[in-house]
Amino acid sequence: MTQDEKRFTPTELLVLIFWCISYFLPLATGYSQDIERDAFFIKELYHHSLADQSDYARLRYLTKEIGARPTGSEAYRRAVDYMREQLAEVGFRDIYTQDAHVPVWLRGADEQVEIHVGDSSMRLSACTLGHSLCPDTMISGQVVVFHHLDSLRENKEDITGRIVYLDQAMDQSQIRTFTAYGAAVGQRYHGPNLAAQQGAAAVLVRSIATDIDDEPHTGIMRIDPSHDAIPALAISTQAAEHLSRLMDSGAIVYADILCHSTVVDSTYDQNVIGEIKGSLYPDEIILAGGHLDSWDLGEGAHDDGAGCIHALEAFRLLLSMGYTPKRTWRCVFFANEEAGLSGANTYTRLSNEKKEYHIAAIESDAGGYAPVGFSFESLENVRDKIQGIRKYWHLLEPYHLDVQFLGSGADVSQLKAQGGLMIGLRVQSDRYFDIHHSADDVLEQVHPRELSLGAAAMASMIYIIDQYGIDP
Amino acid sequence: MTQDEKRFTPTELLVLIFWCISYFLPLATGYSQDIERDAFFIKELYHHSLADQSDYARLRYLTKEIGARPTGSEAYRRAVDYMREQLAEVGFRDIYTQDAHVPVWLRGADEQVEIHVGDSSMRLSACTLGHSLCPDTMISGQVVVFHHLDSLRENKEDITGRIVYLDQAMDQSQIRTFTAYGAAVGQRYHGPNLAAQQGAAAVLVRSIATDIDDEPHTGIMRIDPSHDAIPALAISTQAAEHLSRLMDSGAIVYADILCHSTVVDSTYDQNVIGEIKGSLYPDEIILAGGHLDSWDLGEGAHDDGAGCIHALEAFRLLLSMGYTPKRTWRCVFFANEEAGLSGANTYTRLSNEKKEYHIAAIESDAGGYAPVGFSFESLENVRDKIQGIRKYWHLLEPYHLDVQFLGSGADVSQLKAQGGLMIGLRVQSDRYFDIHHSADDVLEQVHPRELSLGAAAMASMIYIIDQYGIDP
Repeated sequence: MTQDEKRFTPTELLVLIFWCISYFLPLATGYSQDIERDAFFIKELYHHSLADQSDYARLRYLTKEIGARPTGSEAYRRAVDYMREQLAEVGFRDIYTQDAHVPVWLRGADEQVEIHVGDSSMRLSACTLGHSLCPDTMISGQVVVFHHLDSLRENKEDITGRIVYLDQAMDQSQIRTFTAYGAAVGQRYHGPNLAAQQGAAAVLVRSIATDIDDEPHTGIMRIDPSHDAIPALAISTQAAEHLSRLMDSGAIVYADILCHSTVVDSTYDQNVIGEIKGSLYPDEIILAGGHLDSWDLGEGAHDDGAGCIHALEAFRLLLSMGYTPKRTWRCVFFANEEAGLSGANTYTRLSNEKKEYHIAAIESDAGGYAPVGFSFESLENVRDKIQGIRKYWHLLEPYHLDVQFLGSGADVSQLKAQGGLMIGLRVQSDRYFDIHHSADDVLEQVHPRELSLGAAAMASMIYIIDQYGIDP
Repeated sequence: MTQDEKRFTPTELLVLIFWCISYFLPLATGYSQDIERDAFFIKELYHHSLADQSDYARLRYLTKEIGARPTGSEAYRRAVDYMREQLAEVGFRDIYTQDAHVPVWLRGADEQVEIHVGDSSMRLSACTLGHSLCPDTMISGQVVVFHHLDSLRENKEDITGRIVYLDQAMDQSQIRTFTAYGAAVGQRYHGPNLAAQQGAAAVLVRSIATDIDDEPHTGIMRIDPSHDAIPALAISTQAAEHLSRLMDSGAIVYADILCHSTVVDSTYDQNVIGEIKGSLYPDEIILAGGHLDSWDLGEGAHDDGAGCIHALEAFRLLLSMGYTPKRTWRCVFFANEEAGLSGANTYTRLSNEKKEYHIAAIESDAGGYAPVGFSFESLENVRDKIQGIRKYWHLLEPYHLDVQFLGSGADVSQLKAQGGLMIGLRVQSDRYFDIHHSADDVLEQVHPRELSLGAAAMASMIYIIDQYGIDP
């Protein structure tokens, strides 16, 4: 220790501490008053959302009056008209659409898959995969099984003329069903293409689903135009369990497949957009939305009717409570998420051309179950910048909502290049893949309270970002 | 400032800080290694629970092979035998029962409620409330409505011979359904007694339920032996909506009520207990359990078959992973929760007589839905003591589990007098009161993954407390 160092007595230290407190206290008190007001407002959002049943009534119309809304269909156009009306009804004054070029793929009725072992045969519950092309004649061949997409990728055997069967199940031990889905969905997306490259005659895949029942689950597959497409169908998990047992037992299995799906045309489907200009920061856009299209099976209730209704109801709640947007709000119902993302691509291209800035884009596309939190995605430098908004997340804690960096959603993630925060509403998803892309995705699977909680969660996030931006 | 105050130079302050760090760093590192091991273990609990289907298979047996397990019934005795076997199967060596004295109440088949307005009449879907006593003859009278229990309590009109109708609905705007249930259940519990005091002939209550359908929901009511009991029935929410509209329109409504329920006898039902002595702290008991009885409607799947299976599966998971209990474990299936709590009363009395100490008692009695956290209850001085365990709660965060002081559960809360921590497993409960105490409480309403997540959550809590106690 040297004698010329500055020395602090305990008294001097106390003075220093008091000075610090007297400087920061007013700031802290202002913050605390704001937080109390915010907490009250968010609680009211929840009460209003739960008390009002209009969100469920709208989802009922979308699912029961309109029903499935596949890309390029008449039903999709009716949904566009309906959602335009609903945007007007909840208070959007500027309502417009964007044309997105889409293929018109038709399943064709009565797909048939029959397997034969010796003299006995059995019909399997099956559906064509989205974009699969069928020759309209019976295809027959011996079934060859691959337990994983990689086994097919690395296959050296001659499988010319065979019917490839991919039987990977979703891994039930995964804590998040979306993780298990992500690990298994490759066999549906890439499997048909890989099998076609090797000369296979057709492809069967086990439905990517969590439960064991007799409903097949469809979904998009990749088509590589460099070779002829072959028919590709999903069989129900129950059928898959049976077929896999047969194959494992060493039985020689043949299959007959008849399907009729084809791409008949292309057309334009609309993104539907409602907008309200921000009173303070009109150039900062907060988007919330879902995709309006669905698969042709079921009613597109969870996927993604619920997501569209979440966004619509979130804005309705805020507007009905007299809240004036500081930033520009956009409610967006995207076209063609399921079959090529051309709605999102169109939206992003037009937005980039206008040099817009989406400060935040919140997508709901994980179902209408009880919300559990939000998942974020942004450019690396934005991630560093948004520390300031973190102190507001605790406003969400009473509602069991947490915040993680886990990605956002297919329709909004491209917008992150604009430098904002992309957000996915996360929900309790243990039941989702029981019904996803199947005939079971119907209104009855959506619970009114859970739907309303999702809308309130989304409204809370819009409120926080509208109040404070992402870098307060 | 006086000259004799001790002064610190910046160098002295630095030395002090370094000393602090060098003292606490080894502690902190040890903590961090433990936490890594704990996090890994808990993750494995989840994976094992989700991958294994034995919990759901056991619930299937309890609900489909045994079915409803009302107090004093033959089915309850079969459930006792079954759960004894299951305790042995998962690894409990010390298995015993305790006799709890219970009334045997029988509903009697074919309750009838018919309302008349002028010449038109209508049958309402209804069920007798638990412990209601019926005269076995038709009771007729004019219906008088009370929208709240307090209106009946403060009533000055003569309602002698009238049929009292209590039509308070659960408040849908409440964020927690249990809060809404708590606010409405008084009309079922106290209503019949208050009406009887005022000379009413019978009581109808709107079912305490969240959804609108035609299934009535039963539940316990209070009987005051100081006056004659009158028949009391719940009508379905759909019937209640109709009747309330009629009453609100000013119609004069008469009702005929025929029911047959009676208390036929008393008997002894058993608490079923499995125990493993702790290797380090045998005098510190960790209890986990649910109640084995159910109402006679439905199958007692969520209420509380799921709770019993949660506890059984939680211990099974820990034992199957080779974990050796440091503290004494007890898996307890309580008798007669629904109709008087005599199982819990017996358990507590015997435990207190033996001067036992339950360091923690975890109850699951909110359904088999996806878990959202734990709710605590303890004596005030214990609440102050348990700060140390709080740092371990973040082990639960990856599973969306939070911890609040909100009460525990009916079967364990009396044990808090022993000075431990009483804990309720909380689950996502927006669907619970759609089916609670009704014919809809069946296995099909319980989702296998959600059930397994609940068991894993309970196992995680047992693990943390077994490792660290409640005051580490």
